[in-house]
Order: sequence, then structure tokens, then C-alpha cells
Amino acid sequence: MMPHLVPRRPVWWLFCWRAACVQGASVRQRTWAGPSRIPGPGGLRGVWGTGPLVRQGSSSASSRAPEVTLTPERYPVRRLPFSVVSEDDLAALEHIVPGRVITDPEELEAPNVDWLRTVRGSSKVLLRPRTTQEVAHILRYCHERNLAVNPQGGNTGMVGGSTPVFDEIIVSTALMNQVLSFHDVSGVLVCQAGCVLEALSQYVEERGFVMPLDLGAKGSCHIGGNVATNAGGLRFLRYGSLRGTVLGLEVVPTCVPGRGCPSARLTPPCPARVSAAWCPSSVDSRTEAAGRFCHLGVPCRPRSHPMLWALRERITEALSHDGYVYKYDLSLPLDRLYDLVGDLRARLGPSAKRVVGYGHLGDGNLHLNVTAETFSASLLGTLEPYVYEWTAGQRGSVSAEHGLGFKKKDVLGYSKPPEALQLMRQLKALLDPKGILNPYKTLPTHA
Amino acid sequence: MMPHLVPRRPVWWLFCWRAACVQGASVRQRTWAGPSRIPGPGGLRGVWGTGPLVRQGSSSASSRAPEVTLTPERYPVRRLPFSVVSEDDLAALEHIVPGRVITDPEELEAPNVDWLRTVRGSSKVLLRPRTTQEVAHILRYCHERNLAVNPQGGNTGMVGGSTPVFDEIIVSTALMNQVLSFHDVSGVLVCQAGCVLEALSQYVEERGFVMPLDLGAKGSCHIGGNVATNAGGLRFLRYGSLRGTVLGLEVVPTCVPGRGCPSARLTPPCPARVSAAWCPSSVDSRTEAAGRFCHLGVPCRPRSHPMLWALRERITEALSHDGYVYKYDLSLPLDRLYDLVGDLRARLGPSAKRVVGYGHLGDGNLHLNVTAETFSASLLGTLEPYVYEWTAGQRGSVSAEHGLGFKKKDVLGYSKPPEALQLMRQLKALLDPKGILNPYKTLPTHA
Repeated sequence: MMPHLVPRRPVWWLFCWRAACVQGASVRQRTWAGPSRIPGPGGLRGVWGTGPLVRQGSSSASSRAPEVTLTPERYPVRRLPFSVVSEDDLAALEHIVPGRVITDPEELEAPNVDWLRTVRGSSKVLLRPRTTQEVAHILRYCHERNLAVNPQGGNTGMVGGSTPVFDEIIVSTALMNQVLSFHDVSGVLVCQAGCVLEALSQYVEERGFVMPLDLGAKGSCHIGGNVATNAGGLRFLRYGSLRGTVLGLEVVPTCVPGRGCPSARLTPPCPARVSAAWCPSSVDSRTEAAGRFCHLGVPCRPRSHPMLWALRERITEALSHDGYVYKYDLSLPLDRLYDLVGDLRARLGPSAKRVVGYGHLGDGNLHLNVTAETFSASLLGTLEPYVYEWTAGQRGSVSAEHGLGFKKKDVLGYSKPPEALQLMRQLKALLDPKGILNPYKTLPTHA
Repeated sequence: MMPHLVPRRPVWWLFCWRAACVQGASVRQRTWAGPSRIPGPGGLRGVWGTGPLVRQGSSSASSRAPEVTLTPERYPVRRLPFSVVSEDDLAALEHIVPGRVITDPEELEAPNVDWLRTVRGSSKVLLRPRTTQEVAHILRYCHERNLAVNPQGGNTGMVGGSTPVFDEIIVSTALMNQVLSFHDVSGVLVCQAGCVLEALSQYVEERGFVMPLDLGAKGSCHIGGNVATNAGGLRFLRYGSLRGTVLGLEVVPTCVPGRGCPSARLTPPCPARVSAAWCPSSVDSRTEAAGRFCHLGVPCRPRSHPMLWALRERITEALSHDGYVYKYDLSLPLDRLYDLVGDLRARLGPSAKRVVGYGHLGDGNLHLNVTAETFSASLLGTLEPYVYEWTAGQRGSVSAEHGLGFKKKDVLGYSKPPEALQLMRQLKALLDPKGILNPYKTLPTHA
């Protein structure tokens, strides 16, 4: 009944091509790292990547790319006493998702690494369920066996939330990519968590509707991850907070079998006309932007609509040309949104190559990026906790739409009081008593 | 710093006047039952009420109005083993909210009864905290003493959620009516839970913004109750689900002291122009509506904008003229929204005086009303569980925006699977281990 909206191949090959334009069937079977994806008029198009954060790759490219340091070697984190996957476990899991238990080390390389290539796990097993029932069976089994689990969607996250830290079993939503129903009067869309945002956009636009969310990673990110992080994106000002448009979720606790109320979303009617404008704040910023984007092959004077959006969506990639990028995703009062950029420029002086702020005015979301030739602990010390203290001073949030994941979990206290953190822990324990689901993430390490 | 936005007098005198127009200071100190309130061009205006559900009244009017049956005498419900308020308790509570512990039986009459006059509790104590800290102290004390508590906002609910069932202590939000801050660039409003919706609307409109919510009860309902029931209302189509615009809540669990992150809301800029149209579906319905509204003093040919909205907002009151009203608040697929009305007309035949459906197309919310001369158990048996089974057959919801309260708690199973109900119970127990907060409400009686 339902056409295949997105390629059936798993989506965890997340990298960029050097080639100016890659076409053909082999390309269409893949997806790209979100922030580096441009939909061209002639079909999917590859993009360039030369900085240390954007790597050439393929399923065999990892042998050429520098190895990413294992997360526990870079960050102070200790494995919790979960069980280790045994041969018996593999046999039991094979029974739950027959033919979709992946243990090939080469296939497991990409899903163990984030697309920014900053964290790396050592998972030995990846599962590809197709239905909520399969997910429920997997989680029930892992709960009984005390096996840790790492859910993974498009793996486009910025904070190390979608990759395992140690040897957690990866449960990929890549095959849960079906639209279950669409109601063409009310715009209610019922779909699985693994639908790629751009595929959903195309699907509903063909029916006269529009997804209430758009963001740079749309070509790879899964709607389940969008909802999990309550992503803001480029349509916030018009359609409001994503959670306001989610009608329901089918939630699978680790210890209870799931039951069928699939996730549902309300899609607004397609607007008759959309206006977009590029308003550089100064001649300097316009010149600077033009210079950066020339490297990416984007014309300095954008002539067409997709090119205009590409300017915005490829900022992440452009910044990576500088070397190392310190990334922050903050919510701030609108009239102070850009002040931190100026403050930081003054504070960092020549120790930073560039301090850049962009984001979403609609929800006061500042994407703050500081670049340098290479990583420097001294620069990091000048940045943190200063950035978080500055944000807390404005009653802002230390995470706007990227989530907390692995990297930002210990700064949550800058935005939430201890009572709220305690309540979060209790809620987590209620749904996941043994803490097997995505451990080492979201909640601060220490009570 | 902040002007008093709403009268400082408590808001639980909820009734209507017979007088055509009541003006003066004594009136401004009161508010009206939400669905019966009309803001006139010359200030607040009284409205007519003749049906059995809309009563003339004042603080001494109860002697004239027929007594409402005590809830435990009408419904099968048994008191849970909570403590009974003692003299020592009163002294302790007086210490927490000095001068704001109400025990005068006459003052307690109105807050013990819902505005529809269908349920009545027998609370002996009402508290009027002014701050979250006071609420936290009250709840901590009641938790320790095992005293049940009934929070009350504008008491405009339709499902008996805001009045005590037995002798629960009423905690009124009437004095928690302060705007704490408003940000005139981003539109972020921080306010207390007891702010009256209409007062907030006026406040933000004076600053070029609009509340993303409007509904008939706006003159009395509190924003805390709006958020608690995720009220849909008349602006849903433009601004989306209310929860999407709530930036944060300060939550006070019964067993943990509260801490200061007040509720915050994002208000959209005021639209330059608003268009509204009255589109009766048929000549019959137009004639019928005109006839009903003549009784209310609303012109049949509306000439001005407020009168057009009055037609919509006073339907509840108009229906009460028929006698007894069976009320349902359902979410349904948009293309089936009105079918239940036709089905019921055929099913009920002359046993019902009128079957009326209205509501909100934006979120598929049908307000289904069936009227008869008097209450009839036989008619109720023809209506229920038929209405709920019909709704469940469409995967609809048995409560759209009115909440479940006391009256609808046992039909939740038509919309939610047992696993979801169990999870709700666990979440409730997490925040309120002894179950002292608004007992007998929301969750089904039996597991």
C-alpha cells in the first residue's frame, strides 16, 4: 500500500563526498550527514568536505580516514555493570529480528561514530527492527538480561547522543521508515520513528501540506530524533514548537510490552507563498560570508531559492574549514541573543580564529561556534564554564534543540535546579528501572 | 511594579445575573461563570440565565437556589482514608498563609459547587496562597499530615475536576494572579497560575501581542487550569496546541519543596487583521440558532464583532434553556466530526429534545450536547457507552479539552490502553506518593 519513501539501505553511512557531483543508483541508496546535504534540482548531490570534522568516506573509507579516539579514552566515563552480549543473546535476538542482527565489524564502524567524528563506541551488535512490536521484544529481552541499548536514528546529532559509549547494543530505526497513514483533510500523519524528515516533507507536500519542521539535517535525520530533541529549526516562527504538533507517541518502556498507538503528527496546509530574505547584519559580515561560501561552491550572490537556504544550512560545514570547532546550542532572551558573540570575541581575542553566532530568532536559539586551528585545552578553559554561566545569568538554556546527549549532560545544572534533575532521574527510573536505555547520556553523572 | 490585573477578591462566586446590565464597583470585584460572560463596550456586563444549570446568585443566593446534591450521594464514590482537618492543622496552616485560611461556611458554599451545579463537596477549609513557596509549604504540610487537597482556579470546569468530592482542603489560586515579567521583544510572559485568561489577553494586547488561546470562559478561567487541560479554544487553528507555547512550568510535588522557575508563555505578535465569519450549515440551523439566541438578548443578525463571538461563546448557556444537558467533549477525525450528531439524532429519536454539535475544527474537537426536559437514566443508558464506543471506533479521544476530572475518569480506557493507564498511575504516584492531590479525579477508579 505504502511506497518506500526512503532507501531501504541503512542510514548510518554518514559522511560527505569530495566529488562535485555524484549521481546514480549507488548514491541514491545512501543518505548524507544532515548539515552537509543539498538537494539539487537534478536529484541528490554530493558535497565537498575538507576540514577535519568532515571526512571523505564509504563503507571502506574508514581505513583512509584518521581513527576517532574511543570515547572512554577521551572523556572521563566508566562502564556500568551491564551484561556483555553472549552467543546465546545473539541467537535470541536473531529470533526476534531474523536476518537483521548485524555483527560484521566493518558494518559496525560507521554507527559507532558520530558524524562530527568526535566520539566513538565499541558496539559489537546492531539490530534493525521493523515494527514497534519488535522494539518492545528487544527491550524486554535486554531488560531481562541487563544488556544496555543505544537507539540510533539518522546519527546526525551534535552532542554524542546517538552513538554508543561502550558496547551498548545499537537499535537502529532505519527500517522503521513507513508512513502508516495520512489524513488529507486534517493533515494528521501517522508514521514510524525512522522516517527521514525530508522524505516526510516530500510526502506531505505532494498532498498539499507542509511539515511544521525544517532543518539542515533533513536529508538524514529521523523524525523520532527530531521529536526526542524537540528540534526547533527553520519553521519555528510560523508553526511553533514541535511538541505542540505531536498528537501522540507510541512509547516502549524497557520493561513493559508496547502497544499500538503510533506516533502521529499534525501537518499544516502548505502555505500559498513563502518569502525568505537574506539580511546580512553588516558589510563585513556579508563579505565574510561570501568568502566562506566561495569555498563551498555556493555563489556569493544567491539567485535561486534553494541556494539561499543552502547559505544557511551549510554554515556548519563552512566553519569546519577553520580547523577545530567548539559548538554551543543555547536558548537566550531575544534581545541578548547576539551579545554573547561580542562578549566572547573580546574575551578570547586572537586565541580564537572566529566566533560566530547564528540560529533561530523564532525561539531565541543561538548556535554559537568558536573556531581555532586545533583543539586547545586552554581555549576550552576560557570558554567553559564562562559560556554556561553567561547563559544561566540570562536564565537561558544550555541546550536549545541539540539535546544533551553525552557531551552536555553534566552542564544541565546550569539551567535546571537540583529538584528538577532529581525528578528527571525518577522519571527515567520509572520507564527504565535498570537504566539500560542509552546509558551515560542526558542526565548528569553525579547526583 | 506590576499593576493589579484582576480583582483581588476571590473568584469563586460563579453565577450569572438576571439584570440586563449591572455596573459599578461591586460588580467589578466579581467575575462570571466563563461561558456566560460577555465583555460589553461599556465595561463588564451581566447576562441572563433562566435554565436550571444557570442560577441567579450572590454570596447569599444559595438560600434561594435549589441545593446541589452532594457528590457522594449522586455518584458511587467512597472517601479514602485521609486525615480530617483538626484545630491544630488550622493553626499550622494559618502560620503558612496568615489571614488567608477561610473556614466561614457561607464563604465555602460557592467553591464547593461547580458552575454547572452538578457536583458538590463538603470542604471546611479554603486556603489562598500568594506564592509558589506558600503552595509548597501547604503541600508539604498536607503530605506529612495525610490531608487531601483540591486545587481550584476559576472553577469553570465541565467535568467536576475543580471542586472537592468530600472534605478536601481547597487551595485556591485566586491570589496568585500576578504577571511576573513580560518581554516585549520575544513575547515571553511569565505569570502566576491564577491569572485570569482575559486579564492576560488585555495585558499582552496593550503591548502589541496576543494570547495564543481564547475561549468562552476567558473572563473567569485561570491560565493554570488552561494549561492543565491543554485547552484548545478558538485560536487553535492559527497558534496550535497550547502546550506548544508553554516554555516552562514551576511544578510543586506534594513531598518536595518548590523552587522558582515560574510558568512562562510565548505570546505571538498581535495579528494586523482578524477575519471571522458565521457560516450556518443550513437554513434550519440558522433559524434554530436565531430562535435560541433571541432568548439571550443576542441579536439574530449580528452586527458587531463581539456579538458574533457571543453567538459562539453563549451556546452552552442557550442549551441550558432546554432543561438537562448531557455533555461530551470528544476528539474525532475531521471528516467524521459531525457524523456522530446525525447518528445520535436517529438513535435517540424523540427521547432527546435536541442533539447539538459544535466545537473547534482546528483540532477536531466536537462539543456534543444532548438536551432533555429533565435527567433520565434511560436516556443516559442509550447515550453511554454508545458515544464512547463510537469515539473509540474512530480512534478518537473521550476528552478533548475539558479534562477528565471526576465525571469522565472512568471512561479513559476507551482512549488509552491499560499499559498507558498504568504508566499514568505510576507518574502520579511519583509526584504524589500518598495520593493527596485532587483525589477521586482523572485516573480510573479501578486498576
